[in-house]
Amino acid sequence: MQRSYISEVTAGKQNKIAGFVENIRNKRTMAFLVIRDITGKLQVTVEKEKYPEVAAIVDQLTLQSVVTVTGEVVENEYVKMGGKELLAEKMEIQSVAEALPIGPESAPDLRMDYRWIDLRAEKNQLLFQVQTAFVAAMREFLVNKNFIEIHSPKICGAASESGADVFGLDYFDRKAFLVQSPQFYKQMAMTSGFDRIFEVGPVFRAEKSHTNKHTTEFTGFDLEFSYIDNMYDVMKMEEELLTYALAKVKEQYGEKIKETFGLEVIVPTTPFPVIKLADLYKELEARYGFTVPEEEKGDLTTEAERLCKQFAMEVYGHEFLFITDYAAEKRAFYHMRNAEGVPQGYDLIWRGCEITTGAQREHRYEVLKAQAEEKGLKKDVEFYLEFFRYGAPAHGGFGLGVDRLTMLLLGLTIKEAMFIFRGPDRVTP
Amino acid sequence: MQRSYISEVTAGKQNKIAGFVENIRNKRTMAFLVIRDITGKLQVTVEKEKYPEVAAIVDQLTLQSVVTVTGEVVENEYVKMGGKELLAEKMEIQSVAEALPIGPESAPDLRMDYRWIDLRAEKNQLLFQVQTAFVAAMREFLVNKNFIEIHSPKICGAASESGADVFGLDYFDRKAFLVQSPQFYKQMAMTSGFDRIFEVGPVFRAEKSHTNKHTTEFTGFDLEFSYIDNMYDVMKMEEELLTYALAKVKEQYGEKIKETFGLEVIVPTTPFPVIKLADLYKELEARYGFTVPEEEKGDLTTEAERLCKQFAMEVYGHEFLFITDYAAEKRAFYHMRNAEGVPQGYDLIWRGCEITTGAQREHRYEVLKAQAEEKGLKKDVEFYLEFFRYGAPAHGGFGLGVDRLTMLLLGLTIKEAMFIFRGPDRVTP
Repeated sequence: MQRSYISEVTAGKQNKIAGFVENIRNKRTMAFLVIRDITGKLQVTVEKEKYPEVAAIVDQLTLQSVVTVTGEVVENEYVKMGGKELLAEKMEIQSVAEALPIGPESAPDLRMDYRWIDLRAEKNQLLFQVQTAFVAAMREFLVNKNFIEIHSPKICGAASESGADVFGLDYFDRKAFLVQSPQFYKQMAMTSGFDRIFEVGPVFRAEKSHTNKHTTEFTGFDLEFSYIDNMYDVMKMEEELLTYALAKVKEQYGEKIKETFGLEVIVPTTPFPVIKLADLYKELEARYGFTVPEEEKGDLTTEAERLCKQFAMEVYGHEFLFITDYAAEKRAFYHMRNAEGVPQGYDLIWRGCEITTGAQREHRYEVLKAQAEEKGLKKDVEFYLEFFRYGAPAHGGFGLGVDRLTMLLLGLTIKEAMFIFRGPDRVTP
Repeated sequence: MQRSYISEVTAGKQNKIAGFVENIRNKRTMAFLVIRDITGKLQVTVEKEKYPEVAAIVDQLTLQSVVTVTGEVVENEYVKMGGKELLAEKMEIQSVAEALPIGPESAPDLRMDYRWIDLRAEKNQLLFQVQTAFVAAMREFLVNKNFIEIHSPKICGAASESGADVFGLDYFDRKAFLVQSPQFYKQMAMTSGFDRIFEVGPVFRAEKSHTNKHTTEFTGFDLEFSYIDNMYDVMKMEEELLTYALAKVKEQYGEKIKETFGLEVIVPTTPFPVIKLADLYKELEARYGFTVPEEEKGDLTTEAERLCKQFAMEVYGHEFLFITDYAAEKRAFYHMRNAEGVPQGYDLIWRGCEITTGAQREHRYEVLKAQAEEKGLKKDVEFYLEFFRYGAPAHGGFGLGVDRLTMLLLGLTIKEAMFIFRGPDRVTP
């Protein structure tokens, strides 16, 4: 007999289900189990005299053991869980669980040691179903717009973008490095005439930060496309992408997210609001008396970033906010600059957290080379500069962090939002 | 004006196109350019006296420069390429190319140094369009079957599967390793009750092999699912997945693949043929006089693997062949074994090349631990064995290499099929 999902069992018929034992009440003549699979929970009722073999198996079970159970499913108004129960006629043990080393009250770090058990919580399973739908919708949006998916190398002979914060690697008889982001390779694809590309893959950052939103390894969602006129083309692509994906997520999981995480999935309106960084600081001062020293005004401070949540909602009734016109010394050398030297890039803030840096890129070899040198970058970017010598279209793009998006969508910390977290002190499980 | 793809220009109207300059014929009164974008090529004709500014720009152009051109598109039966030309009224240079360092006749290694230029070839662009469609179809198949997408860590504190062939990493003040495959983590997801998962991501192998199908970094397509009865459930999932994806690829790109690579995309029939390894060796001997020493018969030799192409086609009229019943000492410790000690796993051969190892996994902690010890594995797999102590469903799965699939589909070597190849001697660009 084919196994059924618990959400799909048919009352009045024989069903075979399989899952983890969530609860056991083993009485004298009857036993009641709660079995959980990815779709839900079901009460399994055992008449011990009638089915002594099943009763003998129940005696061996511990919480979180895994079983297969076959029997008739009947309606029963006294059963709290969905008003149904399965009357077990046959039971097989797949695995008997030892006593669990963690519970819901365990310290976060211990829960992380046993992440696979922690992930059994319904909310954690929903989390990854939602993330799957979110990312699938983003890919679908891009594939429909003729984006090609690339898989760029994660091992590189040069230390890439800045030379700092890069993990070194023993590569046979030489040293190599873990690529910090697919930035250089997605731009390479533009010089190959690939026109539009995206990549979903791991991104490595050897940063010793201990915050609620940083990690040494995360999943990047990066894209790049050619023949743009300016950074506004890039911003438009991004707002359309996010709007499309959030609409899909809301449609599929909006209700469940509200029930489980207490958060509304809001499909944003387009265009997203845009503000220049200097204007934002003026507004934050005028509205909230928020000030920063003059020398910090070229970049967005962490506190200003947080305030953007309230500001964007109050002024624009929006969860998203594009911020443009950062100081050139605070931006990557490959951002194109206008005649006044202002980088043609932006940050996108969602719910008070930066989710993207995007930009039109500098595709003119001589200008790019000069901008790299100005930042003191030489040897490590040489291979990258080469890409622009033999013909390169105007292009731009941006990168999103899949884990960070999930974190913000569901109101979590980054550690909670990741399948398995990696930080300076954490390389297991 | 919005830029049009070259394949979508409208005759009798103004169009704006952008692309690489593929050819230049600069005559006294006229100039003829061929412009190429991701969708095709178009002749651009310049009447030099009428448009002196355009003529001046043409004088600056080199091959593979990138331009934007605006003008009316007209039908012209004398134009070989599609019978259309664009009469340029306006032209802008995006980038002037230096003289190219490689041509189609350059040595493979030099072409790889300048991979981004090599990727401009139409066949290379098609390659990645096909791969995008192939992988998108596989993901679609799985998401429709309730598979959750995971992104498992690539950095790990333990050296994973075998301890050999693993890249070491400087991780702050300690040593860490690059994960060889998501195997352990996809099984972990099973013990988390995720039921069905897949992952597409980089896989790292510190192997010093120099063959036409090996590489130190490739893109793995891995999946795992629970509550299976035996390995045949896994094989069935794989044949359905590949059949679905190949049908989609054929529909979308079958004609183009035939034109460009001279290969037919064959949508396989299901079920795929299955043979036991010992029976295969008997057949290969009887049919082709092929023999191997007795001590090598527990595994598939490279030459036997190649012969499977002819054998599968002759006997089953099929491009695919499942091979089962390998010797336990040749298979990973985590493959489940039957009462006779035969691993419940398989290899799948396509066009004479192994594309998958799949299996039902051993989910019983004590048995798994014993099998690991039998292979001499201890410390490095300790963290993995823990996953199975607190409840674990029966499960199985397999892994495919995206690059190898593409290679076989289009009749290429692995170096040709990869966006950027990585080997023991190659970590650039």
